[in-house]
Amino acid sequence: MLKKYLLAPGPTPIPPEVLLAMAMPIIHHRSTDFIPVLESAKKGLQWLYQTKNDVLILCSTGTGGMVSSVNNFFSPQDKVLVINGGNFGERWTKIGQAYGLNVQEIKVEWGHTVKPDEVEMVLKNDPGIKGVFVQASETSTGVYHDIRALSRIVREKSNTILIVDAISALAAYDLRTDEWGIDIMIGGSQKGLMLPPGLAFISVSEKAWKMSQDAKLPKFYFNLRKEREALAKNQTRFTTAVTLIIGLDESIKLLQKEGLGKVFKRHETLAHAAREAVKALGLELYSKESPSNAVTAILAPKGLDGQEIYKNLKDKYGITAAGGQGQAKGKIFRIAHLGYADIFDIIIAISGIEMVLTNMGYPVKLGSGVATAEKLLLK
Amino acid sequence: MLKKYLLAPGPTPIPPEVLLAMAMPIIHHRSTDFIPVLESAKKGLQWLYQTKNDVLILCSTGTGGMVSSVNNFFSPQDKVLVINGGNFGERWTKIGQAYGLNVQEIKVEWGHTVKPDEVEMVLKNDPGIKGVFVQASETSTGVYHDIRALSRIVREKSNTILIVDAISALAAYDLRTDEWGIDIMIGGSQKGLMLPPGLAFISVSEKAWKMSQDAKLPKFYFNLRKEREALAKNQTRFTTAVTLIIGLDESIKLLQKEGLGKVFKRHETLAHAAREAVKALGLELYSKESPSNAVTAILAPKGLDGQEIYKNLKDKYGITAAGGQGQAKGKIFRIAHLGYADIFDIIIAISGIEMVLTNMGYPVKLGSGVATAEKLLLK
Repeated sequence: MLKKYLLAPGPTPIPPEVLLAMAMPIIHHRSTDFIPVLESAKKGLQWLYQTKNDVLILCSTGTGGMVSSVNNFFSPQDKVLVINGGNFGERWTKIGQAYGLNVQEIKVEWGHTVKPDEVEMVLKNDPGIKGVFVQASETSTGVYHDIRALSRIVREKSNTILIVDAISALAAYDLRTDEWGIDIMIGGSQKGLMLPPGLAFISVSEKAWKMSQDAKLPKFYFNLRKEREALAKNQTRFTTAVTLIIGLDESIKLLQKEGLGKVFKRHETLAHAAREAVKALGLELYSKESPSNAVTAILAPKGLDGQEIYKNLKDKYGITAAGGQGQAKGKIFRIAHLGYADIFDIIIAISGIEMVLTNMGYPVKLGSGVATAEKLLLK
Repeated sequence: MLKKYLLAPGPTPIPPEVLLAMAMPIIHHRSTDFIPVLESAKKGLQWLYQTKNDVLILCSTGTGGMVSSVNNFFSPQDKVLVINGGNFGERWTKIGQAYGLNVQEIKVEWGHTVKPDEVEMVLKNDPGIKGVFVQASETSTGVYHDIRALSRIVREKSNTILIVDAISALAAYDLRTDEWGIDIMIGGSQKGLMLPPGLAFISVSEKAWKMSQDAKLPKFYFNLRKEREALAKNQTRFTTAVTLIIGLDESIKLLQKEGLGKVFKRHETLAHAAREAVKALGLELYSKESPSNAVTAILAPKGLDGQEIYKNLKDKYGITAAGGQGQAKGKIFRIAHLGYADIFDIIIAISGIEMVLTNMGYPVKLGSGVATAEKLLLK
């Protein structure tokens, strides 16, 4: 018997309350059983997004949400700026190129965060840039970009919108959509929202809606203006993922019970403990600055393969963490503290790392990382 | 207390085995826990589709599958033919137009089925038509189009592919992808597959893959060639709806246990009983020919509103049926016998209709429809 522990940056564990709500007999998406649930989830998302903007619900994974932020607001040849500091930054570029946009990039060395000044300079020098695409938390490198500072820069430009991939940051970070003026923010169900994958969320500001009027890229499934019309009537355009929306409503209620401030604080505390514990083991973080509160990326010690550490955690101890992606593959492994995560998820992660490194012949003092975590997590 | 009965043409009821499998703690989409499940579901879909073609799994509702059959195989201005005989036929036209295709239509009067000869004539007169789009079961009218005959016509044309929306027909009809030569066939999770909404399936023939090489429409989320590459390695391109794929594997196993022939026969028997029972009540079917085995569309008796019948079934008796869509709204109501449906779903539907019509002042002989159904459903 090997008990299973899911400590990956998405899908993340699902609270039993949510699993049970989703296991109830299914209801019809046009029925009076479902409409109040959709309405409640819609309002809950606005609460979580800290916004009065529309927050639309798409039946797709997060990448579908990313695509919808391209094909609804831009036209072929439009110039846009992508902050590319990891695997998901690269995805922005690929999506933009697939749709024929003129994609400029600020390349950020993996493990680092973008300098807002650099973004400001690029926008100043090229007022034709219509959109700035960035990740809040870049899951592949475990780095958080300063969305507040970027918002401040972009909101000054009347013809430029800021598009934030907050897929792994939503419900982990205090992202103030309205206060900061984030035009478009994308979330996914399988991260901080503690749900299975299958839903994307996207908030849209008035400035972005205006831009959408001139957008000429073809759209049908991801047509946000039509999604807005339907959701205004507490309807979905097509059959939607009823089950996941029932779960969404339930999971938002759990977050509301805890309180938004406490949810963010919990993520911060757990992430801090994870990072300090890892360092206490003599390991190095992959994120050289602004480490994310959603996921901790750890450099494999010299001579060890990050994928092997991932594999040993899984095979020997039942812990599903994550390996590296793209250029970081083999170099790192990652543990998440995202969503339905608490003190003992950190303890399990650190304890597992201590034992796996020992198994692999890397000298760590057993219990020393756990002790550091406990000190920081003491109630 | 009002017990609930779901008799709508999707979402359809989910077997408890499937609900429970999906309620298990979630697993990671890149983990060794998930890969065998994906592989098994992939093979199961090929079994259900009766094909050796790729059957790809998309994280979207069925409409996303429909879109992917347009943006992966055609270029702007390409001429295509849509069989438009209902709400979902209209959707083909709208999708084609949204992507800039030159859409020709054969308009079929609602409640009727397309004449294969007419399709043959149109294709003969216009060899530039690259694709023929049709529904197998047109859910809005309760009519089945003769896919076998249409396949026979289109397979003769080397530059034309047949695209079948089998969303509500899959697992209800014996659709022989390889034997008949269906190029593209789209399914959805929430119909005959007895799952929640959130997955689309799409089979692609070699002829269609060849056509995809020249297709110039932009694509990223719905990029079938890339989906194929990933699935060949038992992977998904992005995070996928893990939970639904676990359910999919489970539901296909239930269908396999029953046997494909018996599954189709069950749908045929239930549909036949439903239709005869309805007629025994003096009601008229909306489908004037080739009524679908997935859903029965019934004309509201003179003076009664179909939406009111739907509403009374729901509010008074807890039965979620369906009303009419588009031009049929108000004129009809619909009951499904699709997926996890058995004898007593028909009995409940007919009994509910008898009582609601009585409540609404329309004279039916109580029990007479049920008697007819029982006679046809006797084991």
